[in-house]
Amino acid sequence: MDLFKVDSIDECEEKIFKCIKKSNFDLKYEEVELYKSLNRINYEDIHSKEEAPNFNKSTVDGYAVISKDTSGASETVPTFLDIVGESLMGKEQTISINSGECVYVPTGAMLPEGSNAVVMIEHTENLSQKKIAIYSAVGEGQNVIKKADDIKKEELILKRGKKITSGDIALLSSAGVSRVKVYKKINIAIISTGDELEEYTKEKVDIGKIRDSNSIMLSAICEENFINVYDVVKVEDDYDKLYEKVKYYLDKVDIIVLSGGSSKGKKDYTESVIKDNSEEGILTHGISIKPGKPTITGYNIKNKTIIIGLPGHPVACALIFRILIFGIIEFITSAKLDNKYCIGRITENLKAAPGRMTIQLVNVKEDLTVTPILSKSGIVKSLSKADGYIIIKLNDEGINKGEYVKVHYLT
Amino acid sequence: MDLFKVDSIDECEEKIFKCIKKSNFDLKYEEVELYKSLNRINYEDIHSKEEAPNFNKSTVDGYAVISKDTSGASETVPTFLDIVGESLMGKEQTISINSGECVYVPTGAMLPEGSNAVVMIEHTENLSQKKIAIYSAVGEGQNVIKKADDIKKEELILKRGKKITSGDIALLSSAGVSRVKVYKKINIAIISTGDELEEYTKEKVDIGKIRDSNSIMLSAICEENFINVYDVVKVEDDYDKLYEKVKYYLDKVDIIVLSGGSSKGKKDYTESVIKDNSEEGILTHGISIKPGKPTITGYNIKNKTIIIGLPGHPVACALIFRILIFGIIEFITSAKLDNKYCIGRITENLKAAPGRMTIQLVNVKEDLTVTPILSKSGIVKSLSKADGYIIIKLNDEGINKGEYVKVHYLT
Repeated sequence: MDLFKVDSIDECEEKIFKCIKKSNFDLKYEEVELYKSLNRINYEDIHSKEEAPNFNKSTVDGYAVISKDTSGASETVPTFLDIVGESLMGKEQTISINSGECVYVPTGAMLPEGSNAVVMIEHTENLSQKKIAIYSAVGEGQNVIKKADDIKKEELILKRGKKITSGDIALLSSAGVSRVKVYKKINIAIISTGDELEEYTKEKVDIGKIRDSNSIMLSAICEENFINVYDVVKVEDDYDKLYEKVKYYLDKVDIIVLSGGSSKGKKDYTESVIKDNSEEGILTHGISIKPGKPTITGYNIKNKTIIIGLPGHPVACALIFRILIFGIIEFITSAKLDNKYCIGRITENLKAAPGRMTIQLVNVKEDLTVTPILSKSGIVKSLSKADGYIIIKLNDEGINKGEYVKVHYLT
Repeated sequence: MDLFKVDSIDECEEKIFKCIKKSNFDLKYEEVELYKSLNRINYEDIHSKEEAPNFNKSTVDGYAVISKDTSGASETVPTFLDIVGESLMGKEQTISINSGECVYVPTGAMLPEGSNAVVMIEHTENLSQKKIAIYSAVGEGQNVIKKADDIKKEELILKRGKKITSGDIALLSSAGVSRVKVYKKINIAIISTGDELEEYTKEKVDIGKIRDSNSIMLSAICEENFINVYDVVKVEDDYDKLYEKVKYYLDKVDIIVLSGGSSKGKKDYTESVIKDNSEEGILTHGISIKPGKPTITGYNIKNKTIIIGLPGHPVACALIFRILIFGIIEFITSAKLDNKYCIGRITENLKAAPGRMTIQLVNVKEDLTVTPILSKSGIVKSLSKADGYIIIKLNDEGINKGEYVKVHYLT
């Protein structure tokens, strides 16, 4: 048998990206209501059509004043001002004030023309219906959000490729944006292969068989990352059946993922099936990564479909899936999907796998000590325990206890 | 007017928790299909009913051997073994091997009785149909996942209160768990108040009015944290209307949130409305936190309903909502919701608000430099820009440029 001619993970990604470019793969967009846009990826730069607020707004309950009038005001030497009116919430304020005058403004109400600051009510005293004492000076603009301070007209408020957060939704709604163009969800078909696999819901599994946990795990990763699972299907270790299944999905999805069946065993048809559905043959057969070496990729140019054969071990399967799929989505949309990390100190020595990049699942404690989850390859429990993973680069020998490491949080 | 008698955020939470305990508030559970359990909170400890794998499993393609037989085997001095059979994927292996014998096993297949290790196919050579040379020694257990290595019978595989991840789903499915009891989603009604508010979808807003961004923002925070929004409604600044609305939701939801109307302005009825719907009156009126001081809480014991008046400023509104609601869910379920953080160096000096805990929104760069987003209170744009927030504790004076700070990532 041939030995693997392995790629680095970067080389593997580059080959896929090249095909994406070459074939003008495009995710396209759909327009959704703003309230349905959470966690979707913004399709184009959004410029505000209006300004916000559209008036000078008080950020406190108090009196709108001309800041100069209050200079020198203190607990012992107050300044006295005439009350000439009151601002009402949500109403345009039409009076204007002159030196020596003030207007009551509740939080969020409009300042009268002429005023440029607000004295908090806590720093004032009503002497009569018409007069107040001010015990604290305010500077120009103090306790005021000026017209257009929050959003200017034509201002770029959301960039293409931004994954939309609740904060973005707050901003967009403030600007009156009620619909957003977002990238369509990438569409994936998951095919699990292997005669040893049983449905995880089956009452009892025979000796020698295992429950298929990879399909439901990959579906969950998709769900939480807003990837559309078009279909999940199990196929026997049979070339013809597998070939037909892959062919069937070619014009229906963006990515076909085969889980299991990518190592060098006699019954591994994944390689030939991917090859025979990719015009340019296998792109990558084997990645210099641990775990995850037996990863195979291909690309169907006619249908613009990426085909990925994932390793069967659950840890490798989950990690390689995340890295490749996130990489593809980020390449197409310019989004940053996996951007929560921390640096912490590792509690144990870690050896790297020679000639491979090593991914190590870890726990992160609240004090940011990082503990590797050491277990044999293929132990599914470690995925449940992990908070994140660290990467030991190719050619690094390992990490010493006490060194700082960068942890990528698993979402 | 009374000055606020403020609580610390901890005191505010303690008062709510006390009421929750006193009234035996209970979220109850529902049973869901495993594939629908992502991000839900596990209701009770789950022990595995079975072991996994249920056989000794090879983690590589190769030959199952008795490890002793291979001792000393090397490139130059191979060991020779007789092939006595082949393991088939998903089949119980009934032959057993003796010293000098081996059996071909693909990745994931069952080891024959008598064998205790697997030699990778890359380290072997077929001399004939019946004989192989082995060029590398293996230790006992090498390339093998032993029966029950992954999951033992009766093993605790998922703790009560764990927020279920894709890794947990992989583990549970491996153990044949197809349904899970999860805490019911906490139920929230959001009432926004304020005569200045317009629907964010409105074509044009009059001068003096603003678009209501808080309701949709809070809904988005709920959506992403698996909190059920029972209803979102806008009510005018009118005591009777607000009172009736709160009363209406008391027996329908777990938490009633009022957004806006909690500062000390003349038209702020929130305080009286919360008071008049809470048997024990106002729990907290004002928190020593910046932003977010004008937060009001109450509790309706009869209906076991928490009532929270949030500040109207969007930044304060979002942050206080997260802290209080997450705190309540964590208290009830023992879950850890907000547990992604990092430590980075701050790029600027930061002053604390005297006598208050300060929450500062920040950006985190890939090199973990932390930049505060300095803007006036109430600027909604800062929520869109932020990656997370840092906390300056009560009585700390501030943070110096270059100091390390702990950043809580916003989800």
